[in-house]
Amino acid sequence: MSRWQPDTRERLERAALDLFTEHGFAETTVPQITARAGLTTRTFFRHFADKREVLFFRSADLQQLFVDTVTHAPEGTAPLDTVAAAVEAASEVLEERPAWSRERFAVISANPALQERELMKMASLTTGVAEALRGRGVGEPVASLTAEAGIAVFRVAFEVWIRATDGRDFRGVVRDSFAQLRAVTSGS
Amino acid sequence: MSRWQPDTRERLERAALDLFTEHGFAETTVPQITARAGLTTRTFFRHFADKREVLFFRSADLQQLFVDTVTHAPEGTAPLDTVAAAVEAASEVLEERPAWSRERFAVISANPALQERELMKMASLTTGVAEALRGRGVGEPVASLTAEAGIAVFRVAFEVWIRATDGRDFRGVVRDSFAQLRAVTSGS
Repeated sequence: MSRWQPDTRERLERAALDLFTEHGFAETTVPQITARAGLTTRTFFRHFADKREVLFFRSADLQQLFVDTVTHAPEGTAPLDTVAAAVEAASEVLEERPAWSRERFAVISANPALQERELMKMASLTTGVAEALRGRGVGEPVASLTAEAGIAVFRVAFEVWIRATDGRDFRGVVRDSFAQLRAVTSGS
Repeated sequence: MSRWQPDTRERLERAALDLFTEHGFAETTVPQITARAGLTTRTFFRHFADKREVLFFRSADLQQLFVDTVTHAPEGTAPLDTVAAAVEAASEVLEERPAWSRERFAVISANPALQERELMKMASLTTGVAEALRGRGVGEPVASLTAEAGIAVFRVAFEVWIRATDGRDFRGVVRDSFAQLRAVTSGS
């Protein structure tokens, strides 16, 4: 049974994102999502607490990826470089499904309540990264500052990448953005 | 009439913050606030849309202060230095009422919905600062990166200052935090 679950979850996610894009998030119901996916509402609620969760369940994986990358960076790596490596690692997740990223971003941008939720997820990501940095022996407030600056670069790079029409890859945008942060903070 | 309004608003704010601190935000009602302040609920709703607004009405003033400081920084000032000046300028607002800052922070920290609202206000502050930077001729994505990094320093410095028990002034914490950001971004 359980080997089919990833597929079921992705079918529900695909149907939900299509409907959110076509009709708006608020206008879409769970029965509409399950009808589109050819599944039952009972199946939906086995995978998601509510329709909002369809947009956010991947955030936990992303946070784990960030925390793991920071935690396992080679000894002696500068704090900001461990976070840069984590943001670059997100490339694999995002490049695998660029259309999904773009549609999800559009749905969230159109809805203030979803934006609030996304901001909370970003705050949680920042807290997780700061904790991982403290685990490497980085003290406060440097751990928090580094995490905040790194996640700020992630957000800016994500928006540059999502709006780009020239097919630039996320990793390249991230590298440029970290270089720009360094220029901004040294340029005075 | 209007010359009494600031005092009325501050009396309501004082009563609300006391009650939120004593009983919790969710447990406090508008009639309890107005009873404590010796005013009517009708007066309350002339000043605030709801009890949550009591905690956030000053955010618009803070944003205006940030935007004005960035906009009117001397020509030729480096982008991050205009934002550093804005964050330092917040010192006047915060040092004027440190107890208020501490109580407000405690109330918000105890309530996830208030935290979401605070994150939205910080996002709006970042957007406002980025726009002011673009108004000075700073291009994208440097304007957004600078605003994000500067507001990140503001958040971290605010938490350091609010938790400090040695009476350090906010301006000094901000200067230290910007120096730490510069060290973090150059240290690799």
